[in-house]
Amino acid sequence: MSKARIYMDWNATTPLLAEARDAVLSALDLTGNPSSVHGEGRVARALVESARRNVAVLCGAEPASVIFTSGATEAANLALTPDFRMGRTPLKIGKLYVSAIEHPAVREGGRFAREDVIEVPVTTVGVIDCVALERSLSTHDRQSGLPMVAVMLANNETGIIQPVAEVAAIARAHGGLLVVDAVQAAGRVPLSIEALGADFLIISSHKIGGPKGAGALIARGEVMMPSPLVRGGGQEKGHRSGTENVPALAGFAAAARAAAVDIEGRMAAIAALRDRLEAEMRKGAADVVIHGSDVPRIANTTFFTLPGLKAETGQIAFDLEGVALSAGSACSSGRLGQSHVLTAMGYDPRQGALRISIGERTTQAEIERCAQVFTKVAARRPATGEAA
Amino acid sequence: MSKARIYMDWNATTPLLAEARDAVLSALDLTGNPSSVHGEGRVARALVESARRNVAVLCGAEPASVIFTSGATEAANLALTPDFRMGRTPLKIGKLYVSAIEHPAVREGGRFAREDVIEVPVTTVGVIDCVALERSLSTHDRQSGLPMVAVMLANNETGIIQPVAEVAAIARAHGGLLVVDAVQAAGRVPLSIEALGADFLIISSHKIGGPKGAGALIARGEVMMPSPLVRGGGQEKGHRSGTENVPALAGFAAAARAAAVDIEGRMAAIAALRDRLEAEMRKGAADVVIHGSDVPRIANTTFFTLPGLKAETGQIAFDLEGVALSAGSACSSGRLGQSHVLTAMGYDPRQGALRISIGERTTQAEIERCAQVFTKVAARRPATGEAA
Repeated sequence: MSKARIYMDWNATTPLLAEARDAVLSALDLTGNPSSVHGEGRVARALVESARRNVAVLCGAEPASVIFTSGATEAANLALTPDFRMGRTPLKIGKLYVSAIEHPAVREGGRFAREDVIEVPVTTVGVIDCVALERSLSTHDRQSGLPMVAVMLANNETGIIQPVAEVAAIARAHGGLLVVDAVQAAGRVPLSIEALGADFLIISSHKIGGPKGAGALIARGEVMMPSPLVRGGGQEKGHRSGTENVPALAGFAAAARAAAVDIEGRMAAIAALRDRLEAEMRKGAADVVIHGSDVPRIANTTFFTLPGLKAETGQIAFDLEGVALSAGSACSSGRLGQSHVLTAMGYDPRQGALRISIGERTTQAEIERCAQVFTKVAARRPATGEAA
Repeated sequence: MSKARIYMDWNATTPLLAEARDAVLSALDLTGNPSSVHGEGRVARALVESARRNVAVLCGAEPASVIFTSGATEAANLALTPDFRMGRTPLKIGKLYVSAIEHPAVREGGRFAREDVIEVPVTTVGVIDCVALERSLSTHDRQSGLPMVAVMLANNETGIIQPVAEVAAIARAHGGLLVVDAVQAAGRVPLSIEALGADFLIISSHKIGGPKGAGALIARGEVMMPSPLVRGGGQEKGHRSGTENVPALAGFAAAARAAAVDIEGRMAAIAALRDRLEAEMRKGAADVVIHGSDVPRIANTTFFTLPGLKAETGQIAFDLEGVALSAGSACSSGRLGQSHVLTAMGYDPRQGALRISIGERTTQAEIERCAQVFTKVAARRPATGEAA
C-alpha cells in the first residue's frame, strides 16, 4: 500500500475538476433559497439560471428545456413514465422499448409497469439491433399510447457508441419519443439534442468532473413533458419540486463548461493513453479479449476479459495492487451481479469482464503501472477451465 | 446598501455550519462511488454509513431505517404513496389525510391521486383539529386500503408545534400510518420517532445547518415500506436508487450531530432573542398581530401581520433595508402566492403575513436593527383600509 493509488474507474465517478470544486465552494458560502425573493434568494436564483445556460450549451439545447434533478437516475425516472402532458392535455405512452444494455437507471423502466418495458437485443458487437427495434415497434399497439424508446449514447461498461441517429429515425417513423442516456457520452463526444434526434437527453454532473448530487433532463422543446416525479413547491416550472441544490448545480455548471471545450483534443490524448494500455495488455496476455475494440467507443474505456480470471477475483487483485477499476458497473451497494451487458452481447457472463476507465488526469506513468499490474494479474490466473 | 445584510429567513434555508462545510470539503476531495468495491469506493461507503448513524441518532431511530434522499421534498414523495410493501407483500394505502397547513411538499400528496388526498382543517390557533381528523378517519373505507395521515411537527410559516402524539394515537386507533414532516422541528425540539408515535419522519439537511441536496426518510422499522420513487441501481437497499451524494451526506451528518447537541440551551438563547424582538415589535406597532404567540412554537419563528401592509410590499421594504425575511414560505420560484396557512387559520389571506426566522448566528445587534426596520416600515404603511 506504499505506492500511490491509481484511479481507473472514471465511468463510476470522476475526480472533481478544480474549477467545479471552486464553484461548489463559492456557492456553499452563499446563504439563500433560490425561491426566496429577497437579495440572498436572488443571488442563489441567478446561480441556478446561469448553471442552466451552461448545461444547455453542452447539450446544444435551450436553457428553458433543462430540468435539474438530483442526478441522472432521477432524471431517467422523470422521463420514463406512461403519463405525459402535451401542454395541459394528458398524453399516454403505451410501452417503453429499452436496449438490453441500458444502465439499470433506465432498464428498470422508471414509472412504467414491468410488463410495459420491452427489451430490444443488441448485436454481438454490442450495439442495439436496429432491425429488432424496428420489428418490435411494428407490433406496437398505438391504442395503448405512443411508444417510447430509450437508448444510451455510449455504454457505461463497454464504452461502445450506439447508433442513436438511426434509432431516432426508427422511433420517429413509429411516432415514438426517444430518450437518450448521454451520461457517459457527455464531454467525450459532442452533444446536440437536435443532431441526435432525441426528445430527451439525460446527463450527470459527477460523470463529467462535477460534484455528485446533480443531473439534468434536457428536453428538445417544452411541449411534450413527463408528469412530475417529485411534487411540492413547484420549482423547475413545476417539473421538479424541492429546493435546488445550488452548490452542486454551480459545480455541475463549471464541469459542463469544461466538458464542452476541445472535446476532440482531450479525447485524442485520452485515446492515445487507452491505445497504449491496450497494446501493453495484449502483450501481457495474448488471449485477453477487449470487448468492442472493433467498433466506435468513447476514448476512455477498456472493457476486457482475461480467460480463466473471474471478474470479481480480478477486481480484488487489481485493488490490492493499488489500481481501482470495476467489474461491470458500480450500480448497487457492493453487489457484484453478472454483467447484463456481456449477457446481451452473447458472452458467458459467469466469468465477467473488468472495466478500466480513465480521464484527463490519467498519466502515462499510471498507464504503465496499470499495464504492469495487468501482466502480473494475468500471469497469476489459473489455467482456463479452472476459473477461481 | 452600505449596512451589512441581516439574514432572518432561516426557515427557508439555514447558513451552512462551519463543521458541515468542513465535512463537505473533505468529502469533495475523495473520489469514489459508494457502490464501487475498490478502496476508493469503500471510503465513500464508510462516509455514507457514518452519516446514516448520525442522522439516526438525531431522530432516535435505527441507522438501518434511514433512507437518504436528495431532500425533504423527495422524501415526502417517497413516503406519500398508495403503494406500500409489507416485506414482499403489496399493501395498499387508500387515502392520505393531510393537515391544511402542511408544506406543499406534503400537501401536494406525493403519488396519491388528487381525489385521494383529504385535507383536515386546523383550529384558529393554527393547530390541527384533532376532532375533525377523528371524524374524517371514522369515514375511511378500509376496503380501499389503510389510511395514511401526514402532519408536520412544527409549521414552517408560523412555527406552531402540532400535537403529533395525539394525532398518532388517533391514526393508530384507525389502523393508519403516520408520516411526520419534522423539517422545521429537527434541531429545535428533541426528536424521537418512537415518542412521537410516527411511522415515518422527514428531515432536511439545509434546514439544520447542513448543505442543500440531502434529506432523509426515517422509518420506525423496516417492515412496511413505500414502493421506491426512484428506481435503478438499487442503492439504499433498493428504496432509493442513484449514486449517493457523498459530500452532501457528510455535511448533513455534521449538521445532524450539531443539531442533537444541547437543544434546550440553544433554543433558550434563540427564544430570548425572539422574545426581545417581539417585545420591540409590539412597542413599534401596537396593532401588530403575532400569529401563534399564545401556543407552543419553535423558538426561532415570528409570523406577523401589520394591518394595512401587504406582505409582498412589506417583504420588499425589509429587503431594501437590508433585512431578508419572507412572505410565507419560499416554496416556488419567486411566486408570491397567498398563504394557505393563514387561510387555514381563518385569517384573510389577502393581506398576508411576514415571517422572521432566526438561528444560532443571529446576534442581539441584528435583533435591534431588525426591530428598528420594523418600526420604520410600520410607520410608513398606509392607514388600514387602503393597503397597497
